[in-house]
Amino acid sequence: MEKTILDYDTVALDDADNALVIIDQTKLPEKIELLRLHTAQEIWDAIYLLQVRGAPAIGVAAGYGIYLLANSIDSEDFDEFYKQFCTYKQYLDSSRPTAVNLSWALNRMDQVVCRAHEAGSTVAQIKEELRRESIAIQEEDIAICRAIGEHGLALVKPGDGILTHCNAGKLAASRYGTATAPIYLGQERGYGFHVYADETRPLLQGARLTAFELQSAGVDVTLICDNMSGMIMKQGKVQAVFVGCDRVAANGDTANKIGTSVVATVAKRYGVPFYVCAPTSTIDWSTPTGDDIVIEQRKPEEVTEMWYASRMAPEGVKVFNPAFDVTDAELITGIVTEYGVARYPYTESLQEIRQKMQ
Amino acid sequence: MEKTILDYDTVALDDADNALVIIDQTKLPEKIELLRLHTAQEIWDAIYLLQVRGAPAIGVAAGYGIYLLANSIDSEDFDEFYKQFCTYKQYLDSSRPTAVNLSWALNRMDQVVCRAHEAGSTVAQIKEELRRESIAIQEEDIAICRAIGEHGLALVKPGDGILTHCNAGKLAASRYGTATAPIYLGQERGYGFHVYADETRPLLQGARLTAFELQSAGVDVTLICDNMSGMIMKQGKVQAVFVGCDRVAANGDTANKIGTSVVATVAKRYGVPFYVCAPTSTIDWSTPTGDDIVIEQRKPEEVTEMWYASRMAPEGVKVFNPAFDVTDAELITGIVTEYGVARYPYTESLQEIRQKMQ
Repeated sequence: MEKTILDYDTVALDDADNALVIIDQTKLPEKIELLRLHTAQEIWDAIYLLQVRGAPAIGVAAGYGIYLLANSIDSEDFDEFYKQFCTYKQYLDSSRPTAVNLSWALNRMDQVVCRAHEAGSTVAQIKEELRRESIAIQEEDIAICRAIGEHGLALVKPGDGILTHCNAGKLAASRYGTATAPIYLGQERGYGFHVYADETRPLLQGARLTAFELQSAGVDVTLICDNMSGMIMKQGKVQAVFVGCDRVAANGDTANKIGTSVVATVAKRYGVPFYVCAPTSTIDWSTPTGDDIVIEQRKPEEVTEMWYASRMAPEGVKVFNPAFDVTDAELITGIVTEYGVARYPYTESLQEIRQKMQ
Repeated sequence: MEKTILDYDTVALDDADNALVIIDQTKLPEKIELLRLHTAQEIWDAIYLLQVRGAPAIGVAAGYGIYLLANSIDSEDFDEFYKQFCTYKQYLDSSRPTAVNLSWALNRMDQVVCRAHEAGSTVAQIKEELRRESIAIQEEDIAICRAIGEHGLALVKPGDGILTHCNAGKLAASRYGTATAPIYLGQERGYGFHVYADETRPLLQGARLTAFELQSAGVDVTLICDNMSGMIMKQGKVQAVFVGCDRVAANGDTANKIGTSVVATVAKRYGVPFYVCAPTSTIDWSTPTGDDIVIEQRKPEEVTEMWYASRMAPEGVKVFNPAFDVTDAELITGIVTEYGVARYPYTESLQEIRQKMQ
C-alpha cells in the first residue's frame, strides 16, 4: 500500500547521523519532504519557519535538538560544556515566544544536566542522559495524546459533528495529536464523526495539514473558511469543538492559533461545547492570566502574498498579523488533559490536575 | 496626478457603444481593467463571476444591462418586445440568488415597461423610458449612499476604530459605497478613523478591494484576517462595525457576505456596536425572516486553489462554501438606511422606514 502522511514521523531522532529529522510542513500537502537538521541554526530556522510546528511537536523537536547540540560539544570539562549548553538552549528558546512547550522541554533537559552533574556524572554520561530524556519526552507525548484522546472521546457521541481550528493533529505532535486524538480514537472505533476543519488563515494549517491528515486517515472531513463557523453551528452541524493550545495560563485563559477565541465566542452563542486539549506540559503555572502571555507578531507578507500566485492586497498596506489569540477561560467548557477534564473555574480545577501530576 | 481606482466608475453606461462598462474586480488590485459588456451572456457572466459585485452595484448593472438588452430587441410589436424583455430579465435574474437588488432593479425596469405601455407608449418610447430609469437608478444610488454616510457618521466619533467585512465600498456601489460611506465622509471631514478591513475569505474582497480603495483615498486602513476580529476588539481597537448587506428580511435578519454573523457575534461579546448599512432597495419586505433567504453555494475551488500558486488543500477534500450567512436581527445594533437608522426590534422600525419611503 502507498505510504500516506500518517506513515511518517512528524519529528524523529536519527542517532546514526546525529540528525533531527522532520517533515517539512510548509511543503504540505503538495509534497512530503523530510528535512535532516544538524546545526543550531537549522533547528532554530525549522521552528521559526514553522517547518515543524504545533506545541507538542515543538517540545519534542526542542528535546532532540538540544540533545544533538549538547552531544556535539567538544569538551570533557563540565563548566565549558554547560556554558555552551546554555548558549544553545537560549538560542533555541528564542525561535518562537508563545508555545510554552519549547521552554518547557529545554528546561527539562537543563534539569537533567544539573541533576546528573550533581550526581557526579561525566560529560559523556550527561550526554547519554540527555539522549534518554529526549526520547522519553517523545514517548510520553504519544502516551499523553492517547490519554487526552480517551478523555475527549468520552465527551462526544457517535455521529457527532466536530469542529477544529488550525492543526493540533498528528503533525503537531508525535501521534494522535491533541485536538485530533478523540477523532482518531473515534475513527478506530467506528464513531463516524463529521469533522469540520477551519482552513486557518493566514498559514492555512487547517487546509494544508488537518484536512490532509484526517482525509488520509479516512475521516469524513469538510474544509471550511474560518468565517463559516457561525453558519455551520447555527445549522446544528457541530456538537463539539476541539482545539489544541500553545500556552494555558493558571486561570485557564488559553493562547492558541489566531482565531480560536472567535470560534469559542461563536460556539458559546450557539450552545456548542468548546474543549481545549492540553497536555499538562502546555499549562504554564507561572503565568497567572492570558494578559501575561506574549503573543508572537509575524510578517505582513504571510497575509498579503504568501502562497498566492500574485499579491492579494495593495502594495504597502498596513497589516496586523498576530500568530495567536487568547481565549478567555469563561468561554472554555473544559480543558482536556492527560489526567482528565478540568472545568471552569480553572484556577481550582487546574490545581487539582497539578496535584495528580505529582 | 496619476489616476487611482477611485477615478474609475464601478459601473457605467456607454450609450454610443451600447455597452455596459465595468471594472473587472477579479483583477484587482493587480491591475485596473475595464470590461465592455454587450450581450446577455456577457452581462450574466460578469455578475456570476463577480467581475461586478456588491448589492448596489449589481442593481445598477442589472438596470443598465436590461436596458441595453431591451434596446437591442428588433421589434416594434409590444407583445414580441415584452416577451423577449421577460426572457432577458429572467436570465439576468438567475445569475446570483442572494442579493435582492438584482431582482429589485429588474422588477423596477419591468414596471417601467408596463406603465409606459399602459400609457400608450411605443416600443421606441419604452426603450427611452428604460434608458432614463437605468440612469436614475444609478443617480439615486449615489444620493442614497451619501445619505447612509451621513446617518452612519453620526454614530461614530473622530479617531474611532471601525471594522468592516468584505467590500461594501465604492467598488460595490456607484460612489461612497454603503459601509464605507461614513468612512469616506469622515475622511473628507478630517475624522481620522482607523479602519480594519477583514480580508474576507475565500474571495478576499476585503484585501483586494476594501483595503485597496480605502488606501487610495488616504484612509488609515489595516488589513486583518477574518479570524483576528476577536483579538482587536478585545484590545479595544474597534468602536464600531459597519457592514453592507445583500438582503435584509422584514424582521431585520440580514444576509451578507459569509462571516458577517461571526463578526456580529464577536462584536456583541465585546460590546462593540454592529451596524448594517442598507439602502432600502436591499430590504426585502416579502421575506419574513432570514430563514427564508436562499444562500448561494459556490465552487469548492474558491477555497482550495483559487488565487494560489498551488493547491492549499488535499485533492478531493470536501468543501462547504456558502457565499453568505444570515446575521440574526438581535445581533444588529442598527440598520442604517438612507431614511435614517432603524433599531431593534426591526419588525416595527423597518415599517417606519417603509412609511418614510412613500
